[in-house]
Amino acid sequence: MKKATLAKGTRDFLPLQSRRRKFIFETIEKHFVLYGYQPLETPAMENLETLMGKYGDEGDKLLFKILNSGDFLKSVDEESLSSKDVNKLANTICEKGLRYDLTVPFARVVAMNQNEIHFPFKRYQIQPVWRADRPQRGRYREFYQCDADVVGSRSLLYEAELIQIYDKVFAELGIPVNIHLNHRSILEGIAMEAGIPEKFMEMTIEIDKLDKTGPEALFNALKGMGASQAKCEWILSVLNNKNLDDLCCNEVADKGVSEIKEVLEFNKNYKGHNALVFDPALARGLSYYTGCIFEVKPNNFQMGSLGGGGRYDDLTAVFGLKGVSGVGISFGADRIYDVLSELNLFPSRLGKEPMALFCALDQESLQCAFEQAGILRTAGIPVEVFPEAQKLKKQFQHAEKLAVPYVIIIGEEEVKMQSVNLKNQSNGEQSVLKFSELIEFFVKML
Amino acid sequence: MKKATLAKGTRDFLPLQSRRRKFIFETIEKHFVLYGYQPLETPAMENLETLMGKYGDEGDKLLFKILNSGDFLKSVDEESLSSKDVNKLANTICEKGLRYDLTVPFARVVAMNQNEIHFPFKRYQIQPVWRADRPQRGRYREFYQCDADVVGSRSLLYEAELIQIYDKVFAELGIPVNIHLNHRSILEGIAMEAGIPEKFMEMTIEIDKLDKTGPEALFNALKGMGASQAKCEWILSVLNNKNLDDLCCNEVADKGVSEIKEVLEFNKNYKGHNALVFDPALARGLSYYTGCIFEVKPNNFQMGSLGGGGRYDDLTAVFGLKGVSGVGISFGADRIYDVLSELNLFPSRLGKEPMALFCALDQESLQCAFEQAGILRTAGIPVEVFPEAQKLKKQFQHAEKLAVPYVIIIGEEEVKMQSVNLKNQSNGEQSVLKFSELIEFFVKML
Repeated sequence: MKKATLAKGTRDFLPLQSRRRKFIFETIEKHFVLYGYQPLETPAMENLETLMGKYGDEGDKLLFKILNSGDFLKSVDEESLSSKDVNKLANTICEKGLRYDLTVPFARVVAMNQNEIHFPFKRYQIQPVWRADRPQRGRYREFYQCDADVVGSRSLLYEAELIQIYDKVFAELGIPVNIHLNHRSILEGIAMEAGIPEKFMEMTIEIDKLDKTGPEALFNALKGMGASQAKCEWILSVLNNKNLDDLCCNEVADKGVSEIKEVLEFNKNYKGHNALVFDPALARGLSYYTGCIFEVKPNNFQMGSLGGGGRYDDLTAVFGLKGVSGVGISFGADRIYDVLSELNLFPSRLGKEPMALFCALDQESLQCAFEQAGILRTAGIPVEVFPEAQKLKKQFQHAEKLAVPYVIIIGEEEVKMQSVNLKNQSNGEQSVLKFSELIEFFVKML
Repeated sequence: MKKATLAKGTRDFLPLQSRRRKFIFETIEKHFVLYGYQPLETPAMENLETLMGKYGDEGDKLLFKILNSGDFLKSVDEESLSSKDVNKLANTICEKGLRYDLTVPFARVVAMNQNEIHFPFKRYQIQPVWRADRPQRGRYREFYQCDADVVGSRSLLYEAELIQIYDKVFAELGIPVNIHLNHRSILEGIAMEAGIPEKFMEMTIEIDKLDKTGPEALFNALKGMGASQAKCEWILSVLNNKNLDDLCCNEVADKGVSEIKEVLEFNKNYKGHNALVFDPALARGLSYYTGCIFEVKPNNFQMGSLGGGGRYDDLTAVFGLKGVSGVGISFGADRIYDVLSELNLFPSRLGKEPMALFCALDQESLQCAFEQAGILRTAGIPVEVFPEAQKLKKQFQHAEKLAVPYVIIIGEEEVKMQSVNLKNQSNGEQSVLKFSELIEFFVKML
């Protein structure tokens, strides 16, 4: 028999990890809900024609494709079989693929349901996505995305609102962050001013890599795009400028500046927990952004961004619905998990662990323990019962493994007295409590 | 451009459906947690060798297989290509498949982590599974399973506990059910008594279909297995017997009867909301059950089972870990959804919808509305703001689509008076509230 294994690049989440992940998802979801975002779920499998061509050539290669069921060779022509053209063949024997992100499925849903949906439509979606990337530390083939988007309105109130969501979620998680803010029009204005307007997207992608590659590499890349020495120097200095008012280089950049000012105006009385930073060097790699862009970076901690987003026009155009502007943000749950772990910021109890383990000394006491546990459970208190009247030592070991804060011991004497022996696991203190006092004792700890 | 479509047999869940599904999952999860079950998550993709051979030949055919990425023909021999042996070929070009249920991945996790896991190990898991079934009404290619299992103990206390979970979940959902209970040893004893002990599993599968095929078909099937006319009649009468004490036909059946009695003894003081029914005609199709078996059927409503489960021995043996007994139950979330829908039992509000829509009459009021909304959101009250100071008629339409219970109107006058015009959407009543009174007004409705 072969040893059981996990598929490469995938993970199991055992109880402690799973609880911690739920804590992150629930915190994010709570704030999505408070801001009026509504839940959406889409299937893991999408038709390949929905996914292909949406993420660039590199993305197409990273799609997991699902083999057609039954006789998948039925409609394959001999030629593509014998020529071994794997790309062509893959598209003949596979109709479906696994979701690569939550944005394209969202755009599909909006296009398909445009007559039922009332705009502006705000949705959040917390679901796994799959990418056939080479697995490495911190990069998995299955991971969750947590997105909130609103489509069907150009109002910059939503940008202001999404900044608040970032601020509140990270405040509640206890991770100090900087929220970086920029506008695609500012980058476009810079490209124009540097005389390379047609290289705008190329420049944006290079600026996006600045953190990793450094200013010299950017300088050379810009020169390669045809910018003069002086303009290259100018771009590098502009990217370091954190003052909005110093950025008016032309009308296109001005549009970006004035939209950012409008966003800031909406939040002028909002008391944020984290710094909001105007950052002209923030670029975001994705080509579909057209307006404000965001990125969240942990403060005083070496780690990539914990979230990002921005405004896009016409995301749904590819599915036949034109002129629908939208804006959205995403949280990087895996990185948030890693930061909380490394900084030891997870609460020691996350609210869903059993509060106590009942330990019985004999069969009759076990019956009694099971009934008392039932009463606590009905009162909303999660508890556990050791299922056999075994030696206490063994039962105590189980209590330690479960990390329950209390052990409740019941034996012949306790049954007679209708009481329990309650042991506080953190300090070892024991006390006697009446059955009737148990609910009150635990309820106040919930 | 092609029209956007969903993959066959899959579904999107728009906000109303998604909220209702979350309501079901959260109700089930709540009771799993109260009974000390701990969360587990496993990846959607498993190695095919983990999945193949675990669900019978029929199951193997229904596995969704994932095409290897990159050059998937690399290690394919010419012969299997030219012979077009699709089964052999599929296993050469696919290493991974989508999870078919939650039980096999759970067994894999237990086997892989046997040194870290402390037994008895109680886990719950609420995740989607995929089956390449022919889609039809009520049968989907992606659907959620909600399982709770405990492994590593033979204590019948767990059977008693799982019955309570069924009882409480359906009571809280408002669906009256009967919880059917039987024991595989009783069926085994019946097969022995009928002189067809080697046909035990075959007989079990026929009894499992009794609801659909009727007694005559069962009679004929039993005759076909070699049971005499008299024994066939005896079996049919025994299956109708709901009295445990009338069932002692031999030692094997007796073992089942006494275990069921032990389970009932644990629950003797439990005040259930639903009937617990001993039902010797309950068989369950899956071959791995070896002890008590359960099934939940809606009372007074034509619909298949809403859940089922039972005790199994050696589920993990196939992954190299022997002698681990376990017992578990599962909830059929899709059918539960359908019953709640058809009986109109979903609560009209599920707790996460916005309570109000702020409507502003001009730009300055919009700023004010956004800030007041922010204060409510910080206080934990979900609200929505119409993002532009458009005509009230348009804003009211949006309030209706959102089905918010209140509309909060703010104009020049309101800003000056630091008050709002609050409209109750259910009766049209309007009242004036100070900004400072808003939190108190809404908090008590949460």
